[in-house]
Amino acid sequence: MAACGVAAQTVARPAGNVLRAAPLRAARAGRRAFKVSAAVKLDLNSNVFDKELVKFADTEEYIYRGGRDKFAKLPEAFKGIKTIGVIGWGSQAPAQAQNLRDSFAEAGMDVKVVIGLRPDSPSCDEARAVGFTEADGTLGEVFDVISKSDMVVLLISDAAQAKLYPRILAAMKPGSTLGLSHGFLLGVMQNDGVDFRNDINVVLVAPKGMGPSVRRLYEQGKSVNGAGINASFAVHQDATGTATDIAVGWAIAVGAPFAFCTTLESEYKSDIYGERCVILGGVHGVVESLFRRFTRDGMSDEEAFRQSVESITGPITRIISREGMLGVYNSFDDEGKQIFEQAYSASFGPAMDICYEIYEDVACGNEIKSVVNAVERFSRWPMGKIDQTHMWKVGQEVRAERKEDEIPLNPFTAGVYIATMMATVQTLQEKGHPYSEICNESIIEAVDSLNPYMHARGVAFMVDNCSYTARLGSRKWAPRFDYILDQQAYVAVDSGKQADPEVIQAFKSHPVHKALAACSEMRPPVDISVGGEGDNTGVGAGAARTDFRSVAATVA
Amino acid sequence: MAACGVAAQTVARPAGNVLRAAPLRAARAGRRAFKVSAAVKLDLNSNVFDKELVKFADTEEYIYRGGRDKFAKLPEAFKGIKTIGVIGWGSQAPAQAQNLRDSFAEAGMDVKVVIGLRPDSPSCDEARAVGFTEADGTLGEVFDVISKSDMVVLLISDAAQAKLYPRILAAMKPGSTLGLSHGFLLGVMQNDGVDFRNDINVVLVAPKGMGPSVRRLYEQGKSVNGAGINASFAVHQDATGTATDIAVGWAIAVGAPFAFCTTLESEYKSDIYGERCVILGGVHGVVESLFRRFTRDGMSDEEAFRQSVESITGPITRIISREGMLGVYNSFDDEGKQIFEQAYSASFGPAMDICYEIYEDVACGNEIKSVVNAVERFSRWPMGKIDQTHMWKVGQEVRAERKEDEIPLNPFTAGVYIATMMATVQTLQEKGHPYSEICNESIIEAVDSLNPYMHARGVAFMVDNCSYTARLGSRKWAPRFDYILDQQAYVAVDSGKQADPEVIQAFKSHPVHKALAACSEMRPPVDISVGGEGDNTGVGAGAARTDFRSVAATVA
Repeated sequence: MAACGVAAQTVARPAGNVLRAAPLRAARAGRRAFKVSAAVKLDLNSNVFDKELVKFADTEEYIYRGGRDKFAKLPEAFKGIKTIGVIGWGSQAPAQAQNLRDSFAEAGMDVKVVIGLRPDSPSCDEARAVGFTEADGTLGEVFDVISKSDMVVLLISDAAQAKLYPRILAAMKPGSTLGLSHGFLLGVMQNDGVDFRNDINVVLVAPKGMGPSVRRLYEQGKSVNGAGINASFAVHQDATGTATDIAVGWAIAVGAPFAFCTTLESEYKSDIYGERCVILGGVHGVVESLFRRFTRDGMSDEEAFRQSVESITGPITRIISREGMLGVYNSFDDEGKQIFEQAYSASFGPAMDICYEIYEDVACGNEIKSVVNAVERFSRWPMGKIDQTHMWKVGQEVRAERKEDEIPLNPFTAGVYIATMMATVQTLQEKGHPYSEICNESIIEAVDSLNPYMHARGVAFMVDNCSYTARLGSRKWAPRFDYILDQQAYVAVDSGKQADPEVIQAFKSHPVHKALAACSEMRPPVDISVGGEGDNTGVGAGAARTDFRSVAATVA
Repeated sequence: MAACGVAAQTVARPAGNVLRAAPLRAARAGRRAFKVSAAVKLDLNSNVFDKELVKFADTEEYIYRGGRDKFAKLPEAFKGIKTIGVIGWGSQAPAQAQNLRDSFAEAGMDVKVVIGLRPDSPSCDEARAVGFTEADGTLGEVFDVISKSDMVVLLISDAAQAKLYPRILAAMKPGSTLGLSHGFLLGVMQNDGVDFRNDINVVLVAPKGMGPSVRRLYEQGKSVNGAGINASFAVHQDATGTATDIAVGWAIAVGAPFAFCTTLESEYKSDIYGERCVILGGVHGVVESLFRRFTRDGMSDEEAFRQSVESITGPITRIISREGMLGVYNSFDDEGKQIFEQAYSASFGPAMDICYEIYEDVACGNEIKSVVNAVERFSRWPMGKIDQTHMWKVGQEVRAERKEDEIPLNPFTAGVYIATMMATVQTLQEKGHPYSEICNESIIEAVDSLNPYMHARGVAFMVDNCSYTARLGSRKWAPRFDYILDQQAYVAVDSGKQADPEVIQAFKSHPVHKALAACSEMRPPVDISVGGEGDNTGVGAGAARTDFRSVAATVA
């Protein structure tokens, strides 16, 4: 997840300032300025922790190493912070709040972690159940908590942030620290042409996994030093001179074995983009188009589901996770390789076309604006179900009969899917994102985090366990991938068009394979475990959900 | 097409001014201000022509009546205008330039109509072929023509306008008149936060048909007074006090039998919205989803094509054009009505969901920004073909064997299609557009102008004969209609859900049926004729195209 740019301390808040100063120039520039700041070494210096230089393929990035042996440094990192308000109780908040509390206890610190919720929120009971109570002052009303905190970890939904940020910012103490786990709010504020008040720190720690995993792996980490979920971190604004110490300390205290540097802008662009591409929307569109193609070619519905969805969420995902994309390619015989190459070659260009469109729609603010508007419409049009169609009913039957080791590894499916993944990668690379971020937002999240959910219970269980922003984006872009593959890629294959050797060579020699291998060495050592129908592993309060809400949340 | 707001003369350029004055407030307001100005009687007064008050269902609108008997008033309307520069040579320019020249000759005027093109443009030969030449000063270089014209009729592509408008505006003479046939440029300038210079008139005449029809019906009108294509007109900025006379005179001189008032903002919003909904994107998504459903249910490919595409472009289109949407409903027997009602009822809500999303994405500037960005990418990713898939190959065979009077009128198909049409209508109504505009942008353009193209040669011949803005929008939104109908409407029908009597009652009693009847009385008396494969009726230079470009145009 590390994204890079010029050092954040010296040129904080670039887009916001420009917008405020010169709306016309910014607006016209926004039509073209799609690259994130181009420098690769985001060199954030902490006075408390030591950075390391790590090689990703042909580039290098600075990272910070976490682990329980670093907890001894937390008191210094959080110097002056007596109260941390964690606002909200969605996926991340229960995990981060509990991890922070446990880490501070472990380090012998008296920093108080306080949950901020609406007093009538049903989440209050869940917070009380894990020991956050009004009685000992660790559960309170949102704005009251904000106004009393030295650090505010803002974990309410994107939509709620978009709505409430003026009040939230106004309520914060001078010299306090705003902590975000997603750069979405910066995108909203760029659209609105406003900037953060300049007397607070603004930092980000974005764990590379859902809240439940952040908590589960942290708990396992108590026995295995360093087990936990990696995170990216950023310092957007350093009012006190200690923002980097706080950000790195926060990442370590929630259990990150490694923390990659990024910027808020780079984080939100790659994150919102990635979930619209191969992570959610892309893979959904790919399997819909493949299922249709396979049944039209005469396969039974069940076989078509196995050769498309099951093939991707089973063996293809597993091999990519362990051996990378080339591992999939190398597992085919000559005939399989030929089929893969033809499918890959036909699909890569059309997938790039959509990936570029998505990236630029995210970068220019359109996607964020659309999300904010869509949430306002939820009371009239809540998001509908996406898994009640014929295909996904077939899937339910197929899963019930599944024999894990008999799932086919279909070379055509692999070619189309991996082309979509590489298009997601290639676009991020052309737009100036560094490899740690590219690998996470295009590959690692897909195979280690999301696809296992689709494998367990189908497409909605994957998509609708994510944020509104992700769920809306997946619904928006999945059909686009579907149509363009059908209209261009499959038409080319059916007309007998053979693989383009240049496209295949570019795939085989792409530096991302090495970068992914470097990332893999920093992977947490435990796989995500998700139960199928009737098995609640990975499902529960503050965890993956089995029924999905699409009602506009204010503050959970 | 008439859209309405407060009188244009008194509150010209509302959005532009707001953006320039207060970027923050405008940006945040832009997240909610989706209604076009709400007043219904846009009361534009001409000193030359007489307006009439016309009843559309439960509302009234002012219109101006055209016809060759009004040509005698053209000299007064165009007083002070000696040279009109028509810039570009796409669909509208050849038609409008020739019609203007002929009308001025008929009225005994010496106004010179001059074509402005790049000197190396291949269009120069086409312009010379119809009598615009350098020799007599009626063909010249774009900016040279602009700087010498008293009125500039800007008919280059949307994308070229977005790129070139600063130079174009700068080149115009003080006190001259900018004529647009689409409000797109206003949307671009609103996104950019800039305004028209205030020493020129800015007016719009938007003929409700493609250029070739504008020319063909004008020529027929020489023998039949009043035959021609209706237009909407607007006065966005009146620097000289004569802008309304010029706008109405322009509409009459290009042959409009009736001219409806609108505003630039209302025109571009309804136009860009409508083509994304039922006019192009909606109907494409509807037929793809129906074809798939019908084949899955066991129909042959050919039969599925007949029961979906052919049914819509044939009998359904014909009946709506003559007897309105209720005419289709009334043509079914009891069983047919029941099937229609179930399909309509299940489809209306999901279609509304997408229509609302489209409207708000257009209204907030997102769609225009996406179009401008997409055109910048054309050199790398030109638009691909949309009619090479299996379904449209089947369609080609079906058309070859077609017997026009044997095309089935499928009640399920009719229910889904008319629900999508009514969702397009209902959204425009809720957003404050008047009925003349609603009827044109949701119904009349579909059945009288566009569907006949799909009937003749399939989906690409319809979609890709439109502007880049329309072609991109159709590609973007067709898949969304497809998916939501499949995921929600058809799932509801298959689960046995019966029609909701309230939804059906709302359809039957909707005032749009009366408004459409009122519009029909003002319809030009000639149907559009489009040849099928191998027949070039309606195809040719400056007319419908058989091969489609997607290369960024600068100035044609």
